Amino acid sequence: MINKDMLSLGQNRSAIRELFEQGKVLKEKYGSENVFDFSIGNPTAPCPSIINEKIKSLANNAGLSIHGYTSASGDKNVREEIATYLNKTYDASVSGYLIYLTVGAAAGLSISLKAVTSGNSDDEVIVFAPFFPEYSVFIKNANAKVVTVNPDYETFYPDFDDFRNKITKNTSAVIINSPNNPTGVFYKKEILTKLCDILSQKEKEFNHPIYLISDEPYREILFIDEKYTFITNLYDNSIVVYSFSKTASVPGERIGYLIVNTNCKNASEVYAAICGAGRSLGYVCATSLFQFLIPHCLGVTSDINIYKNNAYFLYEELTKIGYEVVKPDGALYVFIKAPIDDDNEFSKKALEYNLLLVPSESFGVRGFVRAVNCLSEEQTKRALPKFTELYNYYK
Amino acid sequence: MINKDMLSLGQNRSAIRELFEQGKVLKEKYGSENVFDFSIGNPTAPCPSIINEKIKSLANNAGLSIHGYTSASGDKNVREEIATYLNKTYDASVSGYLIYLTVGAAAGLSISLKAVTSGNSDDEVIVFAPFFPEYSVFIKNANAKVVTVNPDYETFYPDFDDFRNKITKNTSAVIINSPNNPTGVFYKKEILTKLCDILSQKEKEFNHPIYLISDEPYREILFIDEKYTFITNLYDNSIVVYSFSKTASVPGERIGYLIVNTNCKNASEVYAAICGAGRSLGYVCATSLFQFLIPHCLGVTSDINIYKNNAYFLYEELTKIGYEVVKPDGALYVFIKAPIDDDNEFSKKALEYNLLLVPSESFGVRGFVRAVNCLSEEQTKRALPKFTELYNYYK
Repeated sequence: MINKDMLSLGQNRSAIRELFEQGKVLKEKYGSENVFDFSIGNPTAPCPSIINEKIKSLANNAGLSIHGYTSASGDKNVREEIATYLNKTYDASVSGYLIYLTVGAAAGLSISLKAVTSGNSDDEVIVFAPFFPEYSVFIKNANAKVVTVNPDYETFYPDFDDFRNKITKNTSAVIINSPNNPTGVFYKKEILTKLCDILSQKEKEFNHPIYLISDEPYREILFIDEKYTFITNLYDNSIVVYSFSKTASVPGERIGYLIVNTNCKNASEVYAAICGAGRSLGYVCATSLFQFLIPHCLGVTSDINIYKNNAYFLYEELTKIGYEVVKPDGALYVFIKAPIDDDNEFSKKALEYNLLLVPSESFGVRGFVRAVNCLSEEQTKRALPKFTELYNYYK
Repeated sequence: MINKDMLSLGQNRSAIRELFEQGKVLKEKYGSENVFDFSIGNPTAPCPSIINEKIKSLANNAGLSIHGYTSASGDKNVREEIATYLNKTYDASVSGYLIYLTVGAAAGLSISLKAVTSGNSDDEVIVFAPFFPEYSVFIKNANAKVVTVNPDYETFYPDFDDFRNKITKNTSAVIINSPNNPTGVFYKKEILTKLCDILSQKEKEFNHPIYLISDEPYREILFIDEKYTFITNLYDNSIVVYSFSKTASVPGERIGYLIVNTNCKNASEVYAAICGAGRSLGYVCATSLFQFLIPHCLGVTSDINIYKNNAYFLYEELTKIGYEVVKPDGALYVFIKAPIDDDNEFSKKALEYNLLLVPSESFGVRGFVRAVNCLSEEQTKRALPKFTELYNYYK
């Protein structure tokens, strides 16, 4: 009576995790300096020193409350500090009482999706290809269907005609992710506006809310001179999911938050459903020490230039070799067109050169691979001859 | 399209949380020294000093790895250290590769239940009344049915005849919890053996595994001179769920583990289903800083005598007043018979005396209230006149 779906999820690791584990084996065999593990977005910029300092000072003054239960939705003061920061920085108009602290963005997504879908298997959730593969896992956990919208392959923005056609009366939610994993593409305000306009029309047409979930772990990892448009200002029925993992180089600590837009229809009910979903999935509260760390981390990031330099370096050098590369605006990734149609075969071939590149199939498009921009500068440079050899193999 | 079940879970807080929140209001009104909040098992014994010291030393030497992703199932060395400790201390015969680090025991339960039930709504999970109310929430999250076995009201062990009758071909799992929340009762080896014998017979009769999930957050909070019997030694298809919350006074930090018995049928498949369930519910890994703290916390507890003294004091003094009280063997609770049948009404009346006592209905039995033994000794003493007044009200 083991759950077959869970067994299959556990036995078939994500393509990313699979490569990550293969990388470990290769590193033991060839030495880690000779393996170019572009597989996992594990931030390598040192975490801001204030984080370790504040951890120490919290532990120094540790009364019981530091390690004690907080409210299930998180410490009230911490939530208010987040709201104040976001409102000051992004004119976000969010409220502390609609913020819910989460065990990372994955928890935020799985909780939100469970809350805003009926549980009935007719529900549909739209994702824009290419997309982070775990979205499918969390959508299925909510017993809803994954509906994939194709990209415009020139810009890697959504194909808006396809988007319009795929919204049905059963659409419960739409997930966006900018800067994007895996393309690095940033959605400028006019793109978001277009997307929200379509959604608003469809809400009217079908006469029910369609929730827009904005997954923002890369919000501050932005290489271009653009202001981040806070989605709560553009679309009422929106939920923001954030994690400190990538921006503050603390991905193992699983700390983040989600926000229900103050203007969301029945906001307090949506928030209550989120509290219920968190409870149902076994989340009691976000880790308390890291909750109390948040006020000291707001707006604090590790050195984003490390990623920017690597991203632009990879983009330029790979282009010189002959690869077609999507120009990254942010995030931890560079999206590379495979010189053959079959991205899985290309990724396999790359392994022979000790290059670990994630094939794009699991992101919902074919013919690309994803490389991370968070290897060290030196390791990134040393990988170039391998990329050249790999390219030449297909010439 | 908000999920109605989640909305209801979010709007109707657990009876425990509800009282906890009412307690906050009363404390603001009357001052916290005048409110006797016996509602929530929030450990009050100071956390062992080694915890804050090791947090500081981890933060001092923090390379990237301290805050980085670990394997989804947790750091390999940490898992092996847990196994070594348990095998030495309890002759447990467990293996590090079948240990999975969790975000507390709630996560461990919700993950295990999702893994060992089919997802088909026919599945049944047996709990022994009185039981921790969140078990129902996690069982329902796995789309299974809650089946409640009555207690023997003399001993608060299970009514074994009722147990035998309630196991059906659809029984997927059984949850035990010793020392028990809410009764404080400890299951001695002969009780566990009897329980396991019945289960083994039924496994043969129905020809499929019935998983025994042992929820052990109070394992070390034991007041009597008894050896803890590790369930893996008595029953093959068993899963142990543990949390450091209560024993080390770190309930907000959400760190624990689960163990699949090495002798479990298809142990590696059960473990894979657990990994899949964790992934599905949005758990990426347990908080890395606290993972690395575990090797320093094994067998380290806060001062259990604080709870023991309060528990025995409450038991004796309340008995003197005239209450019938279940004698606690461990855990953080004292279970008190209400002088009237309706525990909800009694709990409500108690509020008038600023006494916060959780009514037993949500634990699956009627006519009792639960009080915690983790208020300060002084506060516990100061509550006695209130208990007397409350008792006299019903005389």
